[in-house]
Amino acid sequence: MNERLKQQMNFLIEIDKLKSIFRQSHLIDGTRNENDTEHSWHIAVMAMILAEYSNEPIDVLRVIKMLLIHDVVEIDAGDTYAYDVKGYEDKYEREIKAADRLFGLLPEDMHLEMRGLWDEFETCESAEARYANALDRVQPILLNYLSGGKAWMAHGIRRSQVMARNEFSKDGSEVIWAYILEIINDAVDKGYIVKG
Amino acid sequence: MNERLKQQMNFLIEIDKLKSIFRQSHLIDGTRNENDTEHSWHIAVMAMILAEYSNEPIDVLRVIKMLLIHDVVEIDAGDTYAYDVKGYEDKYEREIKAADRLFGLLPEDMHLEMRGLWDEFETCESAEARYANALDRVQPILLNYLSGGKAWMAHGIRRSQVMARNEFSKDGSEVIWAYILEIINDAVDKGYIVKG
Repeated sequence: MNERLKQQMNFLIEIDKLKSIFRQSHLIDGTRNENDTEHSWHIAVMAMILAEYSNEPIDVLRVIKMLLIHDVVEIDAGDTYAYDVKGYEDKYEREIKAADRLFGLLPEDMHLEMRGLWDEFETCESAEARYANALDRVQPILLNYLSGGKAWMAHGIRRSQVMARNEFSKDGSEVIWAYILEIINDAVDKGYIVKG
Repeated sequence: MNERLKQQMNFLIEIDKLKSIFRQSHLIDGTRNENDTEHSWHIAVMAMILAEYSNEPIDVLRVIKMLLIHDVVEIDAGDTYAYDVKGYEDKYEREIKAADRLFGLLPEDMHLEMRGLWDEFETCESAEARYANALDRVQPILLNYLSGGKAWMAHGIRRSQVMARNEFSKDGSEVIWAYILEIINDAVDKGYIVKG
């Protein structure tokens, strides 16, 4: 078999492990936690359905590629909960190491392309990355709200924490952020999120 | 809230249910069955990594959109196992009804776009659909093989059945099909698939 295809298939086989990396969010029906591949699929579909609400013109293919691979590093680095301050201290360092190993399985040109997309997503320095990051933040809020606020309540999350972490989503989409802000406020009213 | 965004969000909320539609394939580590969203994510990543092997030039964005939504109908119609002859009798009828309801949640222009992509995938009448269908067939073969042939052995699947169902994948990609054919033959040698 040709070496290039073998490297590509090895990467595609390795990332099957992302199906076993579970997040704090629950499925909307509340039956279980969601994993990284389910989350990635969901936000990729969101990217195509909600593209018209990006603040800036975007290349939808670049956004979707970014979203499909943005969590792959968690195969090695694990999922760091949004409000885990300690976990965030070395998150980036752990994820850089993971990116080197995982994208490094690919042929060099693709290694560079995927690593470029991942870096772009992380640094949020393009219209595509701003829109992609907004979706990445908005989807768990939607799931937490519709599954009865379990993940927030389990950690006693406050409105100010939710805002500090997510408000920058409006840089990606003012329209989607306005929709989510209503949800956040209703979640406070319902007691899912602590006031203040 | 604007009616259009509300319809789009209702669709995005409804499709969360696809995370609970399980398939016959197992994760590569053999721990459990895979669900439709994990499968859809996996083949969408394959579409971008393996695009160079499509027999014909393709629009990768169209392929990925098709793959992300191709199984959404199974929310209502359920997963029909590849070798379930009885299930296949009314599969298309059940899925058409599901497509009407689910894509019908979207604003009319998007309903038509998504339904068009789904029809195109089902009828396999474009270069994009041929490549997309090849990936949809190839991924479960890869998973079944690497998880020790569980799904094939549970149903006593024969090589001729695997070939009859999957050989058309070569219309999408000769290169990927050659890779998978080696796997099928090795699966026969290993006793995962019945000879003949």
